[in-house]
Amino acid sequence: MIVTVTLNAALDVTYDVDELRPDSSHRVRAVHQRAGGKGVNVARVLQAQGRAVTCLGLAGGWAGTCITADLDASGIHAAMTSIAGESRRTVSVVSAATGGSTLFNEPGPTVTDTEWRNFVAAYRRLVAGSGVVVLSGSLPPGVPREAYAELTRMAHAGGARVIVDADGEVLARSVEAAPDVAKPNAAELRAATGLEDLDAAMRSLLDLGAGAVVATFGPGGIRALTPAGAWVARVERPVDVANPTGAGDAVAAALAAGLEDGRDWPSMLCDAVAWSAAAVAAPLAGDLDAVALAQVRERVIVEAA
Amino acid sequence: MIVTVTLNAALDVTYDVDELRPDSSHRVRAVHQRAGGKGVNVARVLQAQGRAVTCLGLAGGWAGTCITADLDASGIHAAMTSIAGESRRTVSVVSAATGGSTLFNEPGPTVTDTEWRNFVAAYRRLVAGSGVVVLSGSLPPGVPREAYAELTRMAHAGGARVIVDADGEVLARSVEAAPDVAKPNAAELRAATGLEDLDAAMRSLLDLGAGAVVATFGPGGIRALTPAGAWVARVERPVDVANPTGAGDAVAAALAAGLEDGRDWPSMLCDAVAWSAAAVAAPLAGDLDAVALAQVRERVIVEAA
Repeated sequence: MIVTVTLNAALDVTYDVDELRPDSSHRVRAVHQRAGGKGVNVARVLQAQGRAVTCLGLAGGWAGTCITADLDASGIHAAMTSIAGESRRTVSVVSAATGGSTLFNEPGPTVTDTEWRNFVAAYRRLVAGSGVVVLSGSLPPGVPREAYAELTRMAHAGGARVIVDADGEVLARSVEAAPDVAKPNAAELRAATGLEDLDAAMRSLLDLGAGAVVATFGPGGIRALTPAGAWVARVERPVDVANPTGAGDAVAAALAAGLEDGRDWPSMLCDAVAWSAAAVAAPLAGDLDAVALAQVRERVIVEAA
Repeated sequence: MIVTVTLNAALDVTYDVDELRPDSSHRVRAVHQRAGGKGVNVARVLQAQGRAVTCLGLAGGWAGTCITADLDASGIHAAMTSIAGESRRTVSVVSAATGGSTLFNEPGPTVTDTEWRNFVAAYRRLVAGSGVVVLSGSLPPGVPREAYAELTRMAHAGGARVIVDADGEVLARSVEAAPDVAKPNAAELRAATGLEDLDAAMRSLLDLGAGAVVATFGPGGIRALTPAGAWVARVERPVDVANPTGAGDAVAAALAAGLEDGRDWPSMLCDAVAWSAAAVAAPLAGDLDAVALAQVRERVIVEAA
């Protein structure tokens, strides 16, 4: 089983408008709501690919109720730890005129020490029986900055492998606990290491303790630095972009599935690129476009670097 | 007592961002929420001016719970009728860089026939003891388009005077029931009558049955067409604009207070212009800036037209 962790789970709200014009008033044509946050997206992708997955995290207030209800309706096995604060909402305004999305991310709720300990206890129980843990996204206020290092050590103690997908200081602190894979994008790499040179930044995360570093560069593909070698992976011709959000989560999902199966790096990276491209082709983060996935598999190139 | 009616009450959510950039992602610095909708704003203004006011309307779901809780916290006497649908939210994104507001209005919930009848029963009971009723804003789906005409007739039967502040077809249908005052802005006047000429549009609403027409033209001031004569009212020097939303609601509040006191038109219009200018000077719709109100009273000009 794969466990995903979303400490800053969100209620993703989408507003369809005719055209976004700053400083004016808009009639919202339709409102869509669903559970979101990077770990929730990873769980959606894994579940759609037939994997046994459990979604852990923190959820509270009305938004938290909507998050757990939506996970339930989506058939995703979830065991969210309840908090008193109101889970954050993200509002995505989609313009029919341009197809563009404008995103507003609320800050997360403040988590109490007791709530954090409740989560850790639930995590400890579940992680013992799991093969892979994916720790994704930002930490809400109140959660210790070294949370991912603590969770990584507990997963390893239980025999599970760990993938960390986080930004800046949270990523930098997590690699000290030697997660099996660190999965940053270019901006996160720079923020975590303070280095402009991306190769140097990737090596630095390895030196700090990460078992492997898989960095995503959007349409530029994926680079992996591992003890078994280095690879670059990309799609031969780019796919049409419906929504770039969730591409990184599809990569994390593919790596989790690959680690669980014990596959080699080129095979995992091939899936990672294909799932990512299929995620970009789907309108909602956490979904893969099945047609794009079938097409893109033929066009993935993985090369030793 | 004055009764305000807000059939499409809203939870007004404000997001503070550094700068609004379409097609990009924004970190929301602060989230503010409060009860909104035109009739709620009218009630806020009246309560702040020391008037006995009751806020009626429809509220449902989590947003509805927040609306009634906020009215309660604001000390506004409210008796909202419960509905099964989720009350709409409005999201206002305020840019620190420009000071501009970008507004997203959700569509309202669909109201069932039983819910509408429940509201009408509550309204009928309360309106009998009131002096003035203010019917403000749009009608959510499911509420009959002639709702304001029905509510106007019931208020008149109970001995109350009626002010209608609505748009287009809703305003046009309401004047058939002869409300004491119709209070449109320029766009609403045109939409209700189909006439481009604003004087002709005002006369047309009188001909259709309105007891008086008080039209608001933003910084251009107010024009009133009444059986006792016609007036124009404005502020000599404009005030600094903090938030133009709610200016029309302050006018409706001033007219309601004036009707309740039985004051003459020039006196009511003087207050209407002053309250409106003080509303524009306050950052939140429904609030009056006390300093601006004191200053602007000296600068109001009311002339027979």
